[in-house]
Amino acid sequence: MSAIPLPELGRRAKAAARLLAPVLSSAKDEALVLAADRLVDRSDEILSANASDVARCLEAGASTTVVDRLQLSETRVALMADGLRSVAALPDPVGEVVEGFVRPNGLRVERVRVPLGVVGIIYENRPNVTADAAGLCLKSGNAVLLRGSAGALESNRVIASSLGQALSKAGLPADAVQLVEDTAHATAEEFVRLRGVIDCLIPRGGPALLSMIVEHATVPYVLDGDGNCHVYVDAAADLSMAERIVVNAKTQRPSVCNAAETLLVHQDVASEFLPRIGRALEGVVLAADERARPLLPGARPATVVDFATEFLALELAVGIVDDLDAAISHIARFGSGHSEAIVTSDLEAATRFVREVDAAAVLVNASTRLVDGAELGLGAEVGISTQKLHARGPMGLRELTCVKYVVYGEGHLRT
Amino acid sequence: MSAIPLPELGRRAKAAARLLAPVLSSAKDEALVLAADRLVDRSDEILSANASDVARCLEAGASTTVVDRLQLSETRVALMADGLRSVAALPDPVGEVVEGFVRPNGLRVERVRVPLGVVGIIYENRPNVTADAAGLCLKSGNAVLLRGSAGALESNRVIASSLGQALSKAGLPADAVQLVEDTAHATAEEFVRLRGVIDCLIPRGGPALLSMIVEHATVPYVLDGDGNCHVYVDAAADLSMAERIVVNAKTQRPSVCNAAETLLVHQDVASEFLPRIGRALEGVVLAADERARPLLPGARPATVVDFATEFLALELAVGIVDDLDAAISHIARFGSGHSEAIVTSDLEAATRFVREVDAAAVLVNASTRLVDGAELGLGAEVGISTQKLHARGPMGLRELTCVKYVVYGEGHLRT
Repeated sequence: MSAIPLPELGRRAKAAARLLAPVLSSAKDEALVLAADRLVDRSDEILSANASDVARCLEAGASTTVVDRLQLSETRVALMADGLRSVAALPDPVGEVVEGFVRPNGLRVERVRVPLGVVGIIYENRPNVTADAAGLCLKSGNAVLLRGSAGALESNRVIASSLGQALSKAGLPADAVQLVEDTAHATAEEFVRLRGVIDCLIPRGGPALLSMIVEHATVPYVLDGDGNCHVYVDAAADLSMAERIVVNAKTQRPSVCNAAETLLVHQDVASEFLPRIGRALEGVVLAADERARPLLPGARPATVVDFATEFLALELAVGIVDDLDAAISHIARFGSGHSEAIVTSDLEAATRFVREVDAAAVLVNASTRLVDGAELGLGAEVGISTQKLHARGPMGLRELTCVKYVVYGEGHLRT
Repeated sequence: MSAIPLPELGRRAKAAARLLAPVLSSAKDEALVLAADRLVDRSDEILSANASDVARCLEAGASTTVVDRLQLSETRVALMADGLRSVAALPDPVGEVVEGFVRPNGLRVERVRVPLGVVGIIYENRPNVTADAAGLCLKSGNAVLLRGSAGALESNRVIASSLGQALSKAGLPADAVQLVEDTAHATAEEFVRLRGVIDCLIPRGGPALLSMIVEHATVPYVLDGDGNCHVYVDAAADLSMAERIVVNAKTQRPSVCNAAETLLVHQDVASEFLPRIGRALEGVVLAADERARPLLPGARPATVVDFATEFLALELAVGIVDDLDAAISHIARFGSGHSEAIVTSDLEAATRFVREVDAAAVLVNASTRLVDGAELGLGAEVGISTQKLHARGPMGLRELTCVKYVVYGEGHLRT
């Protein structure tokens, strides 16, 4: 199979996007359910393609983490299918009238939610992203160009072709979901420069991919950034609540971006709280600053690097701060603008923390792990944006749309 | 006066942004009014600096257009001051609760409008942008880095220093408005790569500036793009209304982005409408396609280039289309996604045009010239975005903000 050149894929995607934009939710939902069925029907074929991808990666000496992300099972295929069915059940953001008013001269103005057009997804060895991202794009009326990795190519091909079949069966343009089969390293740069084709690029991958995009992309993009998240335990905190929140934020799933990476404790409660949290965090490697170390037996000395690190592991930096101001300043210096929590029963401290901390999400008396599309009731997400433009926080269906002005006059002119 | 290095300006802007974000509207409004007064007080000084800028530009052989944009007068200074007073009178977008709800587990979730942080404005020889942009940024709680041109440096210095004085007098950080005095060509690239400092870059300038940004910027940006706007006169149009709208859209102010550049006429009304509009557009140079030319005496033959051109002058491309589909396809091919109008009394044609045309604004029976912040009731604007992410259409105060999640729990954890 010879790969179709990128510009031709782009032309097809744009044409499909125009056809898809006005499609009714009922038709899109039908296609999503058909796609879920098709994935289950072709499960064996997907697993055999995946086995061949895995074998190739093992031969090339891939790490266990990489192989774990790549490897599918019957359960994982079923989960992909379930994901598509859940997206079908979500409300369609397209057509929502976000705002509407009448001007004094009678001009009627509405702002209406519409699809972005063509979404580009560039991702690493996770074949489930192929189905997950395509499902969200389809539901929000967007065509999608999927640029997966060489390692997952065979799996991605079968998954993308299943989605295409479902689109055709539902009477929708199959080109609305297209896999970029040329996975040569050099063409990644070409992909992120498809200006005029890709209306929004969303990367799913590590720091190297993100810097490549910041450096080379000419298309608009939304980045799913790092999460160096903090929990600040205030002088007026309920310390049992603080303990539960810190343990949850750090250990419930340490490998994800909304897990806590630094604990800051007000000096007034440090001598009571730190020994207690030290015991509760048994098994977590602690890196403590000079003041906190004596209260945390076994902790290693924390350096500036520790406070700047997203460990994504059972490891936590700990510092004592003089007051709320010091906590807010520490977060301003080291935070990545993801999710920041305060534990306090003091209204003024809560109000100031909420107002002065600059992040996608600020939480009062709640675990940072709650910053997630499903937990916040937004449905499935394509990522959590730490950027400020367009999307901030969990990116769901709404963030895959934009708004256009619709203006109704009766011969209105500019005077 | 030696220019302060960019990284140092950036540090100061970030510090000022943190201080400015939680400031009350009343204090920001006071600073805006004081700034307006200060501009008027220092009018002589501004005009003398400006005279020196103009002399330098004339010596360097600048065109009349460039000099016209650069040159200030007492009236223009008064207009800048009035602009600041109007911005003070607009509602503050910061603090607006865009959305709020309670999750089934009692977690309270709000999305609250907050300032972006540091806005970067890069612009050409228009010293009024210094005051206009700074006023909008200040009102929306943002610090601003103003990177004007070498040609306007002396004018910009006095204007920026007046704004800084007003900030100090109002008790706000003077560093919230900073002029980048190093206007060397090479530092423009450095400016658009201040990632981690500039939260949103907004250029005000021509195509060369925009391509430089697309190519080199690593900071997030919003582009004020071209306007290749169309008016489509449908078979069911009220032809007198169509005539008024076309004349208004083309001639009311031809040099701006929301002026019409192409007229498309349904074949069924072409023989009646085209001779009529030809007479009404006396003085406008017409470029007509093969079918339209016989109906427009004096029109030159239109090429593909004409249909792709933003004339910004009394010049109009004219074409006959078979039907609504052909009009929509023509706009999809040539439009720049700015403002597109249909004139029709047919509901289905209006509905389809609104749904299928992809642009920042679609208009029914109204002039494209109405797509403007003031006309749509949004107040002053920093530009009209033709991009889809973050801001689409007129960018006012709201588009200079972003939204953060504020989550209130009572010890809520992720399970």
